[in-house]
Amino acid sequence: MAPSDRTVVDKDRLAQPKPELPHWHSALTYTAPNQVLIRGYPLDELMGRVSFADAVYLMLMGELPTPAIGRMLNAVLVSSIDHGVTPPSTLAARNVAVSRAPLKDSVAAGILAFGPRHGGDIESCMRFLDGGLGLVRNGKTMQDAAATIVEDYARDSIIPPGFGHRFHTRDPRASRLFQMALELELEDEHVRLIRAVEHALEGRRDQYGQALPVNVDGAIAAICADLGFAHDLGNAVFLISRLPGLIAHAHEERVRQAPMRQIDPKDHDYDGPRERRVPEGRK
Amino acid sequence: MAPSDRTVVDKDRLAQPKPELPHWHSALTYTAPNQVLIRGYPLDELMGRVSFADAVYLMLMGELPTPAIGRMLNAVLVSSIDHGVTPPSTLAARNVAVSRAPLKDSVAAGILAFGPRHGGDIESCMRFLDGGLGLVRNGKTMQDAAATIVEDYARDSIIPPGFGHRFHTRDPRASRLFQMALELELEDEHVRLIRAVEHALEGRRDQYGQALPVNVDGAIAAICADLGFAHDLGNAVFLISRLPGLIAHAHEERVRQAPMRQIDPKDHDYDGPRERRVPEGRK
Amino acid sequence: MAPSDRTVVDKDRLAQPKPELPHWHSALTYTAPNQVLIRGYPLDELMGRVSFADAVYLMLMGELPTPAIGRMLNAVLVSSIDHGVTPPSTLAARNVAVSRAPLKDSVAAGILAFGPRHGGDIESCMRFLDGGLGLVRNGKTMQDAAATIVEDYARDSIIPPGFGHRFHTRDPRASRLFQMALELELEDEHVRLIRAVEHALEGRRDQYGQALPVNVDGAIAAICADLGFAHDLGNAVFLISRLPGLIAHAHEERVRQAPMRQIDPKDHDYDGPRERRVPEGRK
Amino acid sequence: MAPSDRTVVDKDRLAQPKPELPHWHSALTYTAPNQVLIRGYPLDELMGRVSFADAVYLMLMGELPTPAIGRMLNAVLVSSIDHGVTPPSTLAARNVAVSRAPLKDSVAAGILAFGPRHGGDIESCMRFLDGGLGLVRNGKTMQDAAATIVEDYARDSIIPPGFGHRFHTRDPRASRLFQMALELELEDEHVRLIRAVEHALEGRRDQYGQALPVNVDGAIAAICADLGFAHDLGNAVFLISRLPGLIAHAHEERVRQAPMRQIDPKDHDYDGPRERRVPEGRK
Repeated sequence: MAPSDRTVVDKDRLAQPKPELPHWHSALTYTAPNQVLIRGYPLDELMGRVSFADAVYLMLMGELPTPAIGRMLNAVLVSSIDHGVTPPSTLAARNVAVSRAPLKDSVAAGILAFGPRHGGDIESCMRFLDGGLGLVRNGKTMQDAAATIVEDYARDSIIPPGFGHRFHTRDPRASRLFQMALELELEDEHVRLIRAVEHALEGRRDQYGQALPVNVDGAIAAICADLGFAHDLGNAVFLISRLPGLIAHAHEERVRQAPMRQIDPKDHDYDGPRERRVPEGRK
Repeated sequence: MAPSDRTVVDKDRLAQPKPELPHWHSALTYTAPNQVLIRGYPLDELMGRVSFADAVYLMLMGELPTPAIGRMLNAVLVSSIDHGVTPPSTLAARNVAVSRAPLKDSVAAGILAFGPRHGGDIESCMRFLDGGLGLVRNGKTMQDAAATIVEDYARDSIIPPGFGHRFHTRDPRASRLFQMALELELEDEHVRLIRAVEHALEGRRDQYGQALPVNVDGAIAAICADLGFAHDLGNAVFLISRLPGLIAHAHEERVRQAPMRQIDPKDHDYDGPRERRVPEGRK
Repeated sequence: MAPSDRTVVDKDRLAQPKPELPHWHSALTYTAPNQVLIRGYPLDELMGRVSFADAVYLMLMGELPTPAIGRMLNAVLVSSIDHGVTPPSTLAARNVAVSRAPLKDSVAAGILAFGPRHGGDIESCMRFLDGGLGLVRNGKTMQDAAATIVEDYARDSIIPPGFGHRFHTRDPRASRLFQMALELELEDEHVRLIRAVEHALEGRRDQYGQALPVNVDGAIAAICADLGFAHDLGNAVFLISRLPGLIAHAHEERVRQAPMRQIDPKDHDYDGPRERRVPEGRK
Repeated sequence: MAPSDRTVVDKDRLAQPKPELPHWHSALTYTAPNQVLIRGYPLDELMGRVSFADAVYLMLMGELPTPAIGRMLNAVLVSSIDHGVTPPSTLAARNVAVSRAPLKDSVAAGILAFGPRHGGDIESCMRFLDGGLGLVRNGKTMQDAAATIVEDYARDSIIPPGFGHRFHTRDPRASRLFQMALELELEDEHVRLIRAVEHALEGRRDQYGQALPVNVDGAIAAICADLGFAHDLGNAVFLISRLPGLIAHAHEERVRQAPMRQIDPKDHDYDGPRERRVPEGRK
C-alpha cells in the first residue's frame, strides 16, 4: 500500500487513459455555500412550513402537493410503518442486529429483503392496472377490462399482484386508504379499476380456494398510480413507510435481546401497551 | 440440490442438534388476522389522524408526540431530506443505479455510506454533549463544561462532532432548527450546551483556521437528545430524513442518464426550477 | 423500550397467533459439536487437501471437481478479480469507504452495484445461449442457431449479453479462458455456440458500428454453463471472483485517501509496480 | 423529471460551484484497451498459472505468495466456507431470499450481518494479540504477556476475542490451521502468543464456567497477523471465505423452499451426503 518503496513507475507509459466524461444535470437540489434549494424552495424555508410527507412528495414529484394529496400521502406513509416481527425484511434486520453490526446495516439488510414477493408487489400491481386501463382506453368498460386482466392470471390460478394476504382476510389498511381517497376526492381510474378487479375475483373464490381482497400493497399501488407516481417510485413509497419499523425492530433487538441469539420467528408474544384509542381532537 | 437421487442419509445420525430457543417478546406491534396495533393503536385508526412524522415518533419512542414535538420532528425530518449530488451516500446510490440494479439496491448502498464521518456525527455529537452534561451535573457551569469538552478535542486540533461543514460557513438548516426549538419551547440542556460549545469554538477560530459553527448534524443531535432519543436513534432520524433524497437521485439517474456511465462528481449543473418562495398560508 | 413500567398486557388476548412452521431440510452443511461436514466431507480434512476454488465448487455443486475442472475454475475466479478504479461497483465501494463506514459496508455496496448491466450479463448470456441450444436440439446447426438468436437482438440493434466492452476491443481474459477450456478438454456446446455467435456478429460490424467480440462475462457464462452451473450461480461465480478487488479498493481508499473526499473517476493514475512477468515454474 | 417543460433556469446564477478535486493514485490495477495488469502482472498471464488464493494474496498484499503461504491461505479460506444454517449471516441471507430478491441482495445482507460478534472477532483478536506483543517487546515473556492481557478481560469475566464457541468445545478448524502453520514453518509470534493465551485461559475454566479454546476466528487472526495482514484485511479474509457458503444457502433457499415462508432456525435436518472421506491423492 506504500508505493514509494517500490520501483517508480514510468508515468508516460502507465498513465491511465482519461476519457472525456459528459457534462450532466440534476433537477433535484441546488447547493451553494449557506444555501440549499430543494426543487427551487429554500430548505430552511420549507422547515416548519411543510410536513415531512409534503417534502417527500416535493422531492419525488417536483412540486408541493395540494392539501388533500398531502393528507393522502401522510396516510399512505403511516399505513405500512410496521407489520410486526414476522415479515422477512424484519427478520433480516433483526438477524443483522444480533451480531451487533451498526444499526444502519440492519436497516440496509431489511431493505434488501423487499423483493418481488414482499413490497415489490406495488410496482407489479401498478403495471397490472395500467394493462387494464389500456383496454379501457381502447373502448372496454372497467368491468370488462377487469375481467380480462383477471382471466390472464386465473387461467393458471395465479393470484394477481396486490390481492390476498397470508394473514388478513380483509386488510384494514386497504379499506381505510380507499375510504380516504374517496373522502379527499382523489379517487381516479386506477382505484376504480382495482375495485372492479376485486369484484371480479370475488366470483372466483371457489377457484382460488380463498377470498382475495385488495391488500395494502394493492391499495398503495392504485392510489399512487392515480397520484401520478412512476412505477418504481410506488415501491419507494413503501420503502419510506416501512423504514421506521425496521429501525424500531433493529433497535429493540439490540437493547432487549442477547447478542448472537437465534431468532425463533413464531415463539414470541407482544408485551407492549394494550389496545387503546387515538386521542380525540388530533389531526 | 436434488437430494433424493443421492444416498439417503441416516437421519438418526445426522439429525441436527435442536437447541431450545427461549420464548421472547416485542413491545412494538401486535398483528392478528385483520388487526394491526402499533404501540397499542389500531393502525387504520392512526391513518388520516396523525402525520407520518407523528407515527415515526410513536414507532421509535412508544407514545404519540405532543403537537409541539410533532412540529419539531417534522422540521428535523425535512432538514436533511437532500443535499445535492455530492455527498458520498448520493454518489454510492447513483453508482449502483448506473448498473440498473433495482432501486432499493441503490437506496441500501446509500444508507451503507452513512459512516462515522457522514451522518454518524449525530450519535457522536450526542455522546459528546452527554459528556459535558455529566460535568454540569457535577457542578460545572454550562460555559465551563463547554470549555472543558472543547479542550479535549482542541488539544489535538480535532473538530468536535457536529461542528463545521465542508461547504457551509453558517448552516441555514441548523439556525432554523434552533429557532424552532426556541419558539416551540422545546429547547433544553443539550441545545443550551451545544450553543455554549459553539461560542467556545469561536474563540479558537485562529487555532482551527476556520469558523466552526454548529452544523445540521449537531443541531439534530442536540434537539433529538433533548427530546429523549437514544443515541443510535439519533442517527436513525437522519436515515429517515435522507431516504427520499436517495430515492430521488437513484430514480433521476435511471431515467435521465445512460447506463454504465462514469459519474463526474463536479462537472454538473442544476437545471431544476429557479429559486421560489414557499406559498403563503401553508403550515 | 422498558415494557415493565407500562400496563401489563392481557396475555390471553394479545398472545401472537403461532402458526405451525413446517420442518425443513438443507443438504449443504452438517454441524454438531466439534464437527463440521461440508457436503459430507469433514471440513478440517478438506483444509490443506483441496484448493479454495475446489471448495467453492464443492459448496455450490455438491461434489469435488475433477482436477481439470478445478484448474478451470481457478482461472475463471482469477479472471475477474479486479478491473481498476472505474467500474460502478468499485466506485460504489470507494464512496462508502470515504465516510469511514466499516470495510464490509463498502463490500456490500459494491456487490449491490452488480446489476443487469454489470456482472448480471453472465446470467443473461447463459439464458441467451440456452435459447440457441434449444434450436440445436430441434435440428438446427450451431451456425443457424447462432444466426437466429443474433437476429433477435440485431433487429433492434441491441447488443446480445456477453459481447462487446466499453474499453476492450479484444478482451484478453476471454481469449485466455477459451484457450484453457480447449486445452483442458472442457469445451462443450455452450462454448461452441458462443464462438458461432461471435462469428455471426462479425458479419454485422457495420450495422453495430463496432466490433463485438465475446467479453469476459460471455466467456464465464459459456464455460460455467458447460460445467453445469445454474444460471444464478453463474452470476455468483463473478461475485466470488470480484470480492477481493472490492476489498482491496475499499482498503486502499481508507489508508491512502482523506475521508469525505469526492472521487473523480477519471483524474487518477496508476503508481503500482510496472509491468512484470509471472515467475517461471509457478503453476 | 423532464426539466425542459419548466421555466428554464438562469444558468449563470444556478451553476453549481465546481471545486478542484485533487489528482489521485491507485497502486492496484492498471487498465488500458486490451490490457489489465494486477499489481503489475498481466491478468491473462496469471490465469492458469496461479490459484485463486494466490491471486487473493496478490490483490490484498501486493506480491505473489511463496508456495507455503499460498497453501496456508488456501486452507484459511477453506476453513470458514460455511457453518450450516444457524449463523445470523446465513439467516439474514435466507430471509432476503424468501422474498425472491436477486441472489446478490441475499449475499449483501449476509455480509452486513458480520458484526463485532460474528466474524468481526478476527480484527479484535489481532488488536488483542498486538497489545500482548507490545508487552513482549518491552521485555515480558510470552507467558507473562499472555497472563497480563487475559487478566484485563478476566477481571470483568469477559471472554477475549478469538476464544470459545457457542457450539464447539474444541474447534476442529482451529486445530488444523495451527497444525498446518507448524508444518509449513509459518508459525510466528502471534501464533505463539495465542497458544500462550489459550493456556492461560485453561487455568481460568472455573471462573468462566466453560472451556475457552481458540476458535477458528482466533486461529485466522493469529495466522493472518503472522503473515502481515492489516487488521481490517483479517476480517476481509473471513468475508472471502464465507461468501460461497452464503451463496449456496441463498440458492438452496430459492430452489428448495416456498417463497415468503418463515424460517424456523432450529426445526430442520440435514439431508445431504452422509459423512465421507476426502479421496486419496488429492492435494
